[in-house]
Amino acid sequence: EASAKVIDGKLVAKQIRDEIAAEVSRMKESAGIVPGLAVILVGDRKDSATYVRNKKKACESVGINSFEVHLPEESTEQEVLKSILGFNDDPSVHGILVQLPLPSHMNEENILNAVSIEKDVDGFHPLNTGRLAMRGREPLFVPCTPKGCIELLHRYGIDIKGKRAVVIGRSNIVGMPVALLLQNEDATVSIIHSRTKNPEDITRQADIIISAVGQPNMVRGKWIKPGAVVIDVGINPVEDAAHPRGYRLVGDVCYEEACKVASAVTPVPGGVGPMTIAMLLANTLSAAKRAYNLA
Amino acid sequence: EASAKVIDGKLVAKQIRDEIAAEVSRMKESAGIVPGLAVILVGDRKDSATYVRNKKKACESVGINSFEVHLPEESTEQEVLKSILGFNDDPSVHGILVQLPLPSHMNEENILNAVSIEKDVDGFHPLNTGRLAMRGREPLFVPCTPKGCIELLHRYGIDIKGKRAVVIGRSNIVGMPVALLLQNEDATVSIIHSRTKNPEDITRQADIIISAVGQPNMVRGKWIKPGAVVIDVGINPVEDAAHPRGYRLVGDVCYEEACKVASAVTPVPGGVGPMTIAMLLANTLSAAKRAYNLA
Ligand SMILES: NC(=O)C1=CN([C@@H]2O[C@H](COP(=O)(O)OP(=O)(O)OC[C@H]3O[C@@H](n4cnc5c(N)ncnc54)[C@H](OP(=O)(O)O)[C@@H]3O)[C@@H](O)[C@H]2O)C=CC1
Ligand SMILES: NC(=O)C1=CN([C@@H]2O[C@H](COP(=O)(O)OP(=O)(O)OC[C@H]3O[C@@H](n4cnc5c(N)ncnc54)[C@H](OP(=O)(O)O)[C@@H]3O)[C@@H](O)[C@H]2O)C=CC1
Repeated sequence: EASAKVIDGKLVAKQIRDEIAAEVSRMKESAGIVPGLAVILVGDRKDSATYVRNKKKACESVGINSFEVHLPEESTEQEVLKSILGFNDDPSVHGILVQLPLPSHMNEENILNAVSIEKDVDGFHPLNTGRLAMRGREPLFVPCTPKGCIELLHRYGIDIKGKRAVVIGRSNIVGMPVALLLQNEDATVSIIHSRTKNPEDITRQADIIISAVGQPNMVRGKWIKPGAVVIDVGINPVEDAAHPRGYRLVGDVCYEEACKVASAVTPVPGGVGPMTIAMLLANTLSAAKRAYNLA
Repeated sequence: EASAKVIDGKLVAKQIRDEIAAEVSRMKESAGIVPGLAVILVGDRKDSATYVRNKKKACESVGINSFEVHLPEESTEQEVLKSILGFNDDPSVHGILVQLPLPSHMNEENILNAVSIEKDVDGFHPLNTGRLAMRGREPLFVPCTPKGCIELLHRYGIDIKGKRAVVIGRSNIVGMPVALLLQNEDATVSIIHSRTKNPEDITRQADIIISAVGQPNMVRGKWIKPGAVVIDVGINPVEDAAHPRGYRLVGDVCYEEACKVASAVTPVPGGVGPMTIAMLLANTLSAAKRAYNLA
């Protein structure tokens, strides 16, 4: 009796990457330009190393050049800033990404603010956030995960305008920007966070729920209005002896229950995750186009 | 049977201005510093001229220097920018305010972006908005009207944390920043705008309603949950033959009805309006303190 449509982020991301690959190859042929993405990784977190490797692989697969700087955990803020400033000045680099989280002895704000706003493909610079929040202003880049969520809604023909939308989570990198994007598309938006009482009373009113919390199975079937669309950003490892690595990844949403109530749901994995990287490639491509004043 | 407490913005604004006057006079005596506010007015709108006059008077009343440039309607954007750049460089000016709206042939974004972020006492620079929207970042200035709304809640001892708050309106200068401020204080916030269906279903759930729409008497008694707090930012002229000028000013909220349902309400006039100017003075004072590295 599971009736929800599965929103296939993997498939959509593949389509988008194909579109990007075609455009990158046209740019190379017609103008001799190859977009370039620089990634700065500090320290030895395994998950961060995996993310960076995936991003580099994704670049290669669409013909975008990738550059990497890997600095040791005990680097100084100055050394990170030096790498950023080098990439800011390098005309073959169109996008710069600092893999988060940074070691705790560094000031994340200082470091992110150093990325040239024209190369801020993560869209984390406060000037980009400010423009995203303001009517009549356009950010140079929209953060990748939020952009990926909205792109999924668009590609599945889901109306946003005039709908009630509830975002669970208010982080700088997912919750808050995705709420702003929904509002820019004329949804009526409510934001739930850890201080919200009875969140299920609010989610039950939503036509669209986007969850970015980091709590496995928090959003139960009874939190969801029948027919609502549910986008699950959460990526949470839960112990599972049956899996080779001893754990598996689940979202914030109880997927089996959601499938019975919602009209459409993203799975985890294979939902928002692949879209994030696709949007990073899209932002890098548009940074390169902007650098050369191409359409 | 009107039972709501009247939130007396005029009284609170007076207290704040007295506090500011005392601090300005201490600064002058101890450090020889006098805060200065520069106001740029373009064109001949009567309402704008009145606002500017009131701001200058308010400066005088607390001992803040005020500077004014009045440019003709047909000025070029360049001429406005020139005035702004002059004030940016002038060490006796700590705050710069461009009275809005600007004539339609000017690009408001370009002009507001030219104001040095250290002197942006209106808090309209996108970098300030971005910082306001981001957790862990602090804007240099919070926009005056939104700041005034929150200050009223504080001074009347109204809890915000964990409460449901609904903001009606999403403008850059009132609705959006006041929603961000409420969220920063851990309210669960929903934003209503012109595309929202059945807004009264949402407002009726709110512990705190802040209305910034510009529609006389839109918020009726039955929109309000019994015991809610209502902050009315709207200032709307309605025809009234009994008044000497032929009109009177009302808010967005049907005041008589609200008084019977809410636990506390701001009147119009005498609610948020006087707070806006008090917050402008407060921002100018803090700009001057920051310029001289005073506490
Ligand atoms: N698919 C992808 O590509 C990506 C996935 N993610 C995943 O998305 C999730 C969120 O990431 P991120 O935004 O960075 O996380 P953060 O930890 O920065 O933010 C989590 C947010 O959830 C809120 N929250 C925490 N507990 C609760 C609760 N019980 N009820 C309601 N709200 C709660 C927090 O509230 P408060 O503000 O009050 O603390 C906070 O706003 C994670 O699982 C992460 O792995 C993240 C980025 C990309
Ligand atoms: N007390 C003070 O010091 C100040 C008072 N004001 C007053 O506050 C009011 C709002 O000002 P401002 O923010 O500049 O105005 P704007 O016109 O810029 O914004 C009005 C907002 O209200 C929304 N809106 C319009 N009609 C409706 C409706 N029927 N239902 C729901 N929402 C609606 C609009 O939605 P959408 O975005 O969809 O168009 C918009 O977001 C005005 O009356 C103004 O005079 C303003 C500044 C200072």
